[in-house]
Amino acid sequence: MADGDASSRPGEHRFSAVLHRIAEEMAARDDHGAPADYIPMLAGADPRRFGMAVAEPDGTVYGVGEWRQPFSAQSITKVFALALALSLDGERIWRGVGREPSGNPFNSLVQLEYENGIPRNPFINAGALVVTDRLQELTGDAAGQVRELLRRESGNPDIDFVPEVAASEAAHGDRNAALAHFMAAYGNVTHPVPDLLTAYFRQCSIEASCADLALSAGFLARHGVRADGSALLTRSQAKQVNAVMLTCGTYDAAGEFAYRVGLPGKSGVGGGIIAIVPGECTLCVWSPGLDRRGNSVAGVAALDRFTTLTGLSVF
Amino acid sequence: MADGDASSRPGEHRFSAVLHRIAEEMAARDDHGAPADYIPMLAGADPRRFGMAVAEPDGTVYGVGEWRQPFSAQSITKVFALALALSLDGERIWRGVGREPSGNPFNSLVQLEYENGIPRNPFINAGALVVTDRLQELTGDAAGQVRELLRRESGNPDIDFVPEVAASEAAHGDRNAALAHFMAAYGNVTHPVPDLLTAYFRQCSIEASCADLALSAGFLARHGVRADGSALLTRSQAKQVNAVMLTCGTYDAAGEFAYRVGLPGKSGVGGGIIAIVPGECTLCVWSPGLDRRGNSVAGVAALDRFTTLTGLSVF
Amino acid sequence: MADGDASSRPGEHRFSAVLHRIAEEMAARDDHGAPADYIPMLAGADPRRFGMAVAEPDGTVYGVGEWRQPFSAQSITKVFALALALSLDGERIWRGVGREPSGNPFNSLVQLEYENGIPRNPFINAGALVVTDRLQELTGDAAGQVRELLRRESGNPDIDFVPEVAASEAAHGDRNAALAHFMAAYGNVTHPVPDLLTAYFRQCSIEASCADLALSAGFLARHGVRADGSALLTRSQAKQVNAVMLTCGTYDAAGEFAYRVGLPGKSGVGGGIIAIVPGECTLCVWSPGLDRRGNSVAGVAALDRFTTLTGLSVF
Amino acid sequence: MADGDASSRPGEHRFSAVLHRIAEEMAARDDHGAPADYIPMLAGADPRRFGMAVAEPDGTVYGVGEWRQPFSAQSITKVFALALALSLDGERIWRGVGREPSGNPFNSLVQLEYENGIPRNPFINAGALVVTDRLQELTGDAAGQVRELLRRESGNPDIDFVPEVAASEAAHGDRNAALAHFMAAYGNVTHPVPDLLTAYFRQCSIEASCADLALSAGFLARHGVRADGSALLTRSQAKQVNAVMLTCGTYDAAGEFAYRVGLPGKSGVGGGIIAIVPGECTLCVWSPGLDRRGNSVAGVAALDRFTTLTGLSVF
Repeated sequence: MADGDASSRPGEHRFSAVLHRIAEEMAARDDHGAPADYIPMLAGADPRRFGMAVAEPDGTVYGVGEWRQPFSAQSITKVFALALALSLDGERIWRGVGREPSGNPFNSLVQLEYENGIPRNPFINAGALVVTDRLQELTGDAAGQVRELLRRESGNPDIDFVPEVAASEAAHGDRNAALAHFMAAYGNVTHPVPDLLTAYFRQCSIEASCADLALSAGFLARHGVRADGSALLTRSQAKQVNAVMLTCGTYDAAGEFAYRVGLPGKSGVGGGIIAIVPGECTLCVWSPGLDRRGNSVAGVAALDRFTTLTGLSVF
Repeated sequence: MADGDASSRPGEHRFSAVLHRIAEEMAARDDHGAPADYIPMLAGADPRRFGMAVAEPDGTVYGVGEWRQPFSAQSITKVFALALALSLDGERIWRGVGREPSGNPFNSLVQLEYENGIPRNPFINAGALVVTDRLQELTGDAAGQVRELLRRESGNPDIDFVPEVAASEAAHGDRNAALAHFMAAYGNVTHPVPDLLTAYFRQCSIEASCADLALSAGFLARHGVRADGSALLTRSQAKQVNAVMLTCGTYDAAGEFAYRVGLPGKSGVGGGIIAIVPGECTLCVWSPGLDRRGNSVAGVAALDRFTTLTGLSVF
Repeated sequence: MADGDASSRPGEHRFSAVLHRIAEEMAARDDHGAPADYIPMLAGADPRRFGMAVAEPDGTVYGVGEWRQPFSAQSITKVFALALALSLDGERIWRGVGREPSGNPFNSLVQLEYENGIPRNPFINAGALVVTDRLQELTGDAAGQVRELLRRESGNPDIDFVPEVAASEAAHGDRNAALAHFMAAYGNVTHPVPDLLTAYFRQCSIEASCADLALSAGFLARHGVRADGSALLTRSQAKQVNAVMLTCGTYDAAGEFAYRVGLPGKSGVGGGIIAIVPGECTLCVWSPGLDRRGNSVAGVAALDRFTTLTGLSVF
Repeated sequence: MADGDASSRPGEHRFSAVLHRIAEEMAARDDHGAPADYIPMLAGADPRRFGMAVAEPDGTVYGVGEWRQPFSAQSITKVFALALALSLDGERIWRGVGREPSGNPFNSLVQLEYENGIPRNPFINAGALVVTDRLQELTGDAAGQVRELLRRESGNPDIDFVPEVAASEAAHGDRNAALAHFMAAYGNVTHPVPDLLTAYFRQCSIEASCADLALSAGFLARHGVRADGSALLTRSQAKQVNAVMLTCGTYDAAGEFAYRVGLPGKSGVGGGIIAIVPGECTLCVWSPGLDRRGNSVAGVAALDRFTTLTGLSVF
């Protein structure tokens, strides 16, 4: 945990004691889950690795463990893609994607079929493909725009795609290809499927650290205001993104996450989770071992402990 | 709106202006939806009727419109039944019912079949039957216990069942009977189905006003503490009930409700909705016209306006 | 196999050698499946028991093994109920039940929900309930009419209900009760559910032997003509019943049964199966051990051997 | 109907009178359905066009109407692909595809998901893709082998692909692409999806006439024997293909087709249907107007009349 100690300066921040206690508890856990196995570069990760960062609305950030270690952001990028689409497109994005929990595993085709190619929400894969498709239409470079947003909000210009990860996902991308073709059959994606998948897998391949992602999500705790003081989203839109995160952000375990953690959150199969305490701070935790629903075991546990120890929760 | 005017004393409460503005806006609406048509006593209601109450944690309550008019609480009682089951039974209640959004209309049998008779959450009918079954086991009189809780928290001893409504629901109760028998086939309800349905329909038939229900739900804004200062739920349990309300409280529109209103809420087909601002206050709104998903049209709109005008939302 | 030997008179009938060979092969099998476990009176059956009968259109019948041993006809009675409903009601019966394969296990509620309470065919439980409901309406005693048809066609006045079996099914009847209530919610059954279930379970509890059932089904090989020469069904109706048996007669294994056996057939969880060679003969086989789809293991195997050895199949 | 008159020589063949009567009845129909609209080259067809041919086991063929007019065979080719796969691969083909009716519309992804990427039968699109994938593996040219089989059995060397039709299907092929990718995710197709789709759409684009297809299917009436007297299938395999046609050959209307027509049959969206009277003859009928389930309206009606008038049916 050396790299975090200096900058987190124990004793100086309001959550220092809590974060260190959580890191100790997570290190003592027996059960860390198992890394995602379908992407070779992720499969080898040590599930005991752990990092956690808290970013204050003023842009300060501190953390414990490997909080400055870049990891594969994966589905966490869906939050930023949605925010960009909302900021550029307003309500229009909701024509092609709903905002209801899916009640089904994250890759399910069933609901998509019963609802005529309109995915239930932007955080299941099908819905994220719709958002990327729209963002590609609006900007010409969906993945690049997401990377740029992360770089600017975190102040870290080194945040980037990892081509090997994108290639690995493409090589195992049959389910996403099926989803995209299926929606194309309903006219709900407009770009050629191979191009759309390329953009989508690039976006998913972005590597960033807990510090980077906690800072980048700051606009969701600041009611839509970016790090530079300009507005990315309206207050109402920021509330809406948080609402969708709370009800749909953790695959088929959104209810469980709300019940245990009580915060808007979004997980990725790289083992990261971001969570928002509106008006207060943003959190990002990382540990590569996943539960059967695809959420980081230690990540969920750490956030559960954080809200329990601090009393910070939206409920 | 006469009956609310005196006791709401415009100008004296922090939300008076907001409530009056909302009442005016709702009166001016063209679209009020249509009352539930399967219960004759509800079907005749005028969809333009409207009442709204806010209860402060200290037990004061004020409102606008027909905020003291009793109406059929219906599914709103599910919150109180769940709270009682949790207080008496702790985590055990979750053996028979999940806490994930259903992603399906509220009467759906499909998910129940795929998940071996365990309903997704306690606020769909199947899940509420499990809670009532368990509460019946624990207390011998599930419906009576719910009535008693409402009477005590609201201070209104006149809150009661409406036998004609219960009888009407029983006469149209084939779907609920199907759900109960189906779960019985999996061993997930233990009382004879006719007895269970009798208890369930009695509970649903309770009539109470916006004032009554806003006061009764106060323990969810007070982190589990009852009106008399004793604990009904632990702080953690109160948070959990709020989380389940936010993710599952408005049938197949939970995501939409979270997106628009941003508060834990629970609706009933009588046209009522309760909503919680944790630590701040509880709200109850009533208007009998429903949308196609079974939620009060003016009720949702009024809560949407409330959070927009006050900035109070959990996000 | 003593009881069959005398009357089957080896050498005298065209299928004697085939039947004896099949009986020997079945006796030598290792795998006999397991009896249905949800009805105590059936659960205790020895899965090695075996009987098989062939009835000629002229009313002669012969067999091997326990071909005169009464067993629980169960779902085989659905064929006779359907034939009676068709004969009394003509095409009208198809208003409430389809004639497409279900593509789902035999108790499934899913398809019923997606198709508004109209079961896919009369041989799944939901569809049989619709037929019984209609036959009850037409005759006042559905189960009695089915018993009477079996008695007359087989010439055996001892064929009867077994009240203990009917009671046992009622005691484990929650799935059927769920189906009936669900269809009642759509208005697709008209009798009070408890009354309907009583009639249905009585009908299922009928005991008859392979000889009885092969003779009773003779009208389906004689293009609708009863044993006494009168018409129960038109030629076209008899063809239709055979078609529904072929496509829907063996639960979720109708395709497999058509593929292996190539005859219209109907199985029951008592271990019996009837099969029709139109214009040629009718067969009934019994062995209590079932496969996972609810069809008699030795029963299907024996019919498979029969059509392979004789070349008799509809294809 | 001129072109059929000469060779059909009224009075000389056993079914001449029947065929002419049917052609007249079909010409007098008001309702002809509508051509498939998703393939431009098919969409323009006149739904009143009609042709019908009967082929005797000895290779003679006669017909009425436009029985020598080539049309797009489409899904009818699935029967020939299955026969080739069975003849080359035996039972192995059933590892990747079932033989149960689907109980769902022909493009449904739902069942595929619940059954781990194994399609229910070889006549729904997903199942046909598995067969083509396997045939491609076995022969290197699945579509070419199907064309060759049709040419040889019909004696018509002009039977060929129609590249414009194949291209049109590829341009609207998103659903089939989704199916193929989805099965690829389960490892149930092995060729690259674009290659597989190319082979599949070529196969579907084959044009042949009623005469060609009735003759080509002759081996199914001759218990597996080809026109040249050699065996394509064993007797048992021919029976099996007929069984799968009867239970699964007409999309979601297989039960209805068995009920009305009572013959193994396979339809295509080009408006053609082949039907088998085992041991007797084969039929092919063509009329481009389809019902909502994708079967030719006049085609089904003509076959219904044929079996009613001749008494030929398997039941």
